[in-house]
Order: sequence, then structure tokens, then C-alpha cells
Amino acid sequence: MTKLVKYTTNDFNLASGKSISPLEIAYETYGKLNKDKTNAVLICHALTGDQYACAINPITKKPGWWDILVGKGKPIDTDKYFIICSNVLGGCMGTTGPKSQNLITNEPYGLNFPVITISDMVKSQVLLLDHLEIPKVLTVIGGSMGGMQVLAWMSEYPDRIKSAIPIATAAYHTSQNIAFHEVGRQAVMADPKWHEGKYFEYNTSPEKGLSVARMTAHITYLSEVALQNKFGRNLQDRAKKTFSFDADFQVESYLRYQGVNFVKRFDANSYLFLTRAMDYFDLISENDGVLANAFNDLNASVCVISFTGDWLFPSIESKKIVHALNSKGVDVSFIDIESNKGHDAFLMDEPAMFKTIRGFLEAQYVK
Amino acid sequence: MTKLVKYTTNDFNLASGKSISPLEIAYETYGKLNKDKTNAVLICHALTGDQYACAINPITKKPGWWDILVGKGKPIDTDKYFIICSNVLGGCMGTTGPKSQNLITNEPYGLNFPVITISDMVKSQVLLLDHLEIPKVLTVIGGSMGGMQVLAWMSEYPDRIKSAIPIATAAYHTSQNIAFHEVGRQAVMADPKWHEGKYFEYNTSPEKGLSVARMTAHITYLSEVALQNKFGRNLQDRAKKTFSFDADFQVESYLRYQGVNFVKRFDANSYLFLTRAMDYFDLISENDGVLANAFNDLNASVCVISFTGDWLFPSIESKKIVHALNSKGVDVSFIDIESNKGHDAFLMDEPAMFKTIRGFLEAQYVK
Repeated sequence: MTKLVKYTTNDFNLASGKSISPLEIAYETYGKLNKDKTNAVLICHALTGDQYACAINPITKKPGWWDILVGKGKPIDTDKYFIICSNVLGGCMGTTGPKSQNLITNEPYGLNFPVITISDMVKSQVLLLDHLEIPKVLTVIGGSMGGMQVLAWMSEYPDRIKSAIPIATAAYHTSQNIAFHEVGRQAVMADPKWHEGKYFEYNTSPEKGLSVARMTAHITYLSEVALQNKFGRNLQDRAKKTFSFDADFQVESYLRYQGVNFVKRFDANSYLFLTRAMDYFDLISENDGVLANAFNDLNASVCVISFTGDWLFPSIESKKIVHALNSKGVDVSFIDIESNKGHDAFLMDEPAMFKTIRGFLEAQYVK
Repeated sequence: MTKLVKYTTNDFNLASGKSISPLEIAYETYGKLNKDKTNAVLICHALTGDQYACAINPITKKPGWWDILVGKGKPIDTDKYFIICSNVLGGCMGTTGPKSQNLITNEPYGLNFPVITISDMVKSQVLLLDHLEIPKVLTVIGGSMGGMQVLAWMSEYPDRIKSAIPIATAAYHTSQNIAFHEVGRQAVMADPKWHEGKYFEYNTSPEKGLSVARMTAHITYLSEVALQNKFGRNLQDRAKKTFSFDADFQVESYLRYQGVNFVKRFDANSYLFLTRAMDYFDLISENDGVLANAFNDLNASVCVISFTGDWLFPSIESKKIVHALNSKGVDVSFIDIESNKGHDAFLMDEPAMFKTIRGFLEAQYVK
């Protein structure tokens, strides 16, 4: 069950110069913290993820988004490790975000929510670790936007992590990444039901716009090969083309399904803020143009994982991270996994990833 | 100046089984037809192109979309060849399309326009050649959707072409191609100003939806490298991030500009019908699963051109066409041009493409 921790301090200052109060963090834990507090694993979720990494998600009623990796006897073994996963700052599953109540106006923040960064998200997770009285986690792990958080941990709180596993991620958002996010935001904002972010007041929601945003993003999460293998040009429940705008092709039907289901569980404004946080992420410019400088104080072991079929966060971006770590003499291992599943491979059945994470974690635990 | 040819026959039957009457074809010609009628070049335009290949476009007031290639002394030399370019069936620049008057209802067709195919487009071009009394063109050339039309010419009217130049195209639309088009259509249809395609009745237009569709498509026309080189993470007219949803990044500003300008010149329903026609294109399934069978009767010379940086219509798709042509003993040459410009390379300054087209055309002309 999700727990909530609430901070009413005014000291939670954001990168933008603004602050949030109160700050609530919704999180789940799995397994037990050992006496020495050396078995904590912090999972950072991706853009549309949440704290339900392996528990049944109360909204979708489906297994957690990383159920394949986290659980009893699984690579991130709940019998062995104490696993923490919190909803990110700006999210919509309990942690303070744009749909939370703004105590000043007594209505949901909407666009009055401050624009946040990946660093801000991580800063809130530090508060959570303090609350749980865990000085140092065994590892911090995450894919995509989760991987960005892992990199921010490595850069900003190196003393709080023994190791780190950034997966399918990058040290900065590329021009193409930003472009796709911008299209998604424009789709949301083009929906008149968005009402400049005040859709709650109108008891409505920009579902069509958010659905289009999700559909676009979803294409980028899969490889061309994965789409071709999964759907090809197969028709959906029909023998012939209908010569209409129905979802003749399976891939159309699938995308529409993805869009429709997403809007049931996600807040449109959260989507705007979280995509913006990813766009703003840039460990290079934040370190005077030298990525390696982000890791000046890092003494943790790092395991970088990428996938060959990922065109959104291509392997080359992971290699840049590895090179930067190498130049600082950080203990880093790197695996570029042969896969045609696209960016979403980190959420799927990838035995090489499972084996790598299991082995790396075990080695860190006994170290 | 655009000329119009009007057919009132009821015999213009479409692949869907429906027919259109009257059928008007808007076209431009450049240069002079020689006495033997052996110097005609038919240009087929892409999804958002029009008949203004090299003349000033009356809507945008800009040079034609292929002005770089077509003109006096250029590879497709207006001093030498008689060039024909017609607006495609279903388009919005004069040829009959969804914004044309439906004589039965006395209002624009809108969604009552029949769903058309690439073959239907080509069929209308055959009528135009008949009207111009040209039995056989020297070449038929086009990129992207224009290339699909070229392939359809090669397959269905082999006796009307001496040669063909399909560029940056494919014999079928892939699952990913269909997916991106479907997202664009959903963006248009999600706009309440679309009014189920009857926006003319409301004196409005789904500009926001169409703009989002264009933005998404535009990303797919450029390579990741091109975006990174052109914009990177550069900020737009500002020194710092604004921590807002303004177009902080140049790439955002550029995309918004693309969207806004596109809606000034393009009809939203046309966008739906033309993307659908591309999705339906599949020379493989139409030939019992064997692409080569599409070219059973082809006796023309073919020059296939692709670009290494094109991820929307990747080189591998052109190679499949070449292999199919080879298997039928067709005289085919193939050039895969090293380029990082993405799919839109065929519209840009690509010296290798210019040289290839000039040489191929000259060889065909003297043959």
C-alpha cells in the first residue's frame, strides 16, 4: 500500500528559484530493510510510471510496471532487498504535482505548478531517504526518465549511493527528443478541454489531446522492427480494407487503445511538466560543457545498460556516459544489449538485462 | 499559370468501387513539348506538395518545391524537357479533392469524398497525358508519395513511360509509417473544429489539430543528426531557460512555425485522404506477395534513388525495389546517397542526386 510522507517546510527550493509547500511524497516499499541498512534499492520510474513497481496498480488493476524484474526470487529480489519506489515530483499518483491542491488558491495548481527539473525530483527522493533514515542506498536504478534521475543522483548525491544502474537513458535530451515532447505538449494544449490547464474547474479533461500525445510517444518507444514484427500491415478483424478512416490496420487499433487507456490513468498537466523536466535535463551544459565533471565526486560502482534497438535513447548516448565515467576512473561496467524491442526494452523480458542486474546487485551487496 | 482540365465522364472508377464526377485536374507545365513528343517529364508530388514544382507558389509566394532541381539549365532542364506536374487527386490546390464541390449535395465533399489510392492518383494523370496527347513520357519522377506514384506507373502503365525515377520511397507503407500517419489523423480528428470533416459549414478549420499533425510528420522528415546539427539544444532568443512552456528551445520554435505555416496552405481533409492513400499502398500484397510481379510488363529504364539518413523510407526499401526489378531483368540503376538530411533530402541540395538525375535523363533522351 502506498504510504505518504508530508513536508510542510518552506525550504524545498526548486531549480527555478520557486518552492513548494507542502510537499507530499507517495511511495511504496517492498521487502525489509536489514539491520545495517545496507540493502536498500531505490527505483526511479519513467515518464508515465509510478510507485507501483511490482505491486498491483490500484488504477489499472494490473501488475506493477517492473513486475517482471522486481519480486520474490526475481533479479531485484524482494526477499533480499528493501525496495523503495516513489511517485516523482510533478507526478499524478499521490506525490505533489499539478493536480495537487495549491494551498494559496485552494484549487489544483494546474499551470501554477512550478516547472520542475530532474534534480528537483531527486531532491525530493533525498527527503524520503532521510525520512526512512537510510544514509546510503545499495543502488539507485531506473530506465529512461528514471535513468536521468539515476544520473542526477550520481552527480549530486554521490555519498548517498553505493552503486547506480542507469538504463536506456542519456545525459541530456536531444533535439529530436525535445521535438517529440513538444508535439505531445502541443497536442494537449490544442485540446480546448485543456482550458489553459484549468480543466478541473470545468470538470473535464483534455483526453483527446493527451491521447494523441501518448500515441506519438508510443511510436517512439518501439523500434520499427518491433512494429513490423508485431503488426506489419495486418488488418484488424477484417479481410479487406474498408476504404474509410476506421482502424483498418492492427497498428492503428493498437495505438488508439494505447491512447484511450493512458488517459484513464494520467493527468494531462503532469504530462506537460514531466516532459518539460526531461527536456531541461542536460548534465553537459550544467557542467560547463564537460560531462565528466558531473561525476567529480562519484565513488560508486556504476552499471550502464543500453539496447541496440532503442532509437529514442540510442546506445551512443550511454557510451558517452561510460566514457565520462571512465575518464574519472569510476568503476563502471557497460552492456549494450542486442534487442529489437526499441526503447521500451527496459520494461520487457530481456534476459541479458535481468542477468546483468541480478549479478551486479549481488556483487554490490557482498562488497 | 495552372491550367485546369475537366472531365464529366462517369467512368472514372476508383479502386474502392466508387467513382468521381466531374473530375478536374489542375496542372502546370514548364518548357515546350517537342515535335516528336519525346521530351515529356511527368513530376509526381509528395504528400504536401502541389503542381508548383518550379513556378512561384501563388499561396506561399515562394519558389516551387522542386525549384532547386527543375528549371533553366537545372538537372530537369526546362529548356530541354516539357515538364508536367499536376496536383494529385484528393489534393487541395485545384484538382478534385475533399474540399471540391460535391454536385449531388452542393457542398464540399468533406468525408463524403471517396477514399482514394495511389493507383487512383496515377489513373487521373493518365487522363491528363491523354488530354495533352502524349503517348509516352520520357520519364516519370517523384519522391516519397511521389515515388509511390512512380512505382504505380511502372506497375500499371508500363507502356506509357520510357523511364522512371522513384526517389526516397517504398513499395509499401510500413507499420511505423502507418502509425505516424494515424497519429496525424487522430490529431486532426481530435480538433473539435474539424466537425466530422464539415468545417466549411462552420466557416472554421481544425488548424490546431492539423498543425500538430504537421509537427509530428516534420520530425519524421528530418534525421536525428540533422535536428541535432541544426538546433541541438540551442535556446531561442534567450540566454536562459524560462521554466515555462514557452518555446525555449529553437527546435520547438521551428516546429511551431512549421505547423502554423502549413495550415495556411493545406486542407485538413486532404491531409486525411492523402495519408490514407499512402497507408493503403502495397505493391507486394497487390501482387500476390511477390513485388517482382508488379513489374512483369515493364520495359522502361529505372533509376532508384535513396538516402542513407532517411529513416522514414530507409534505403533497404529501395533495395527491395531494385532486387525485384533485377529479378525481372529490368534495366535498373541504383544510388544510395550518403546524406544526413533525413527523408527530406530529396527536396534539398544533394549534388549526387542532381548529377544522377541529369545524367540519367540525358541518357534516356538520346536513347
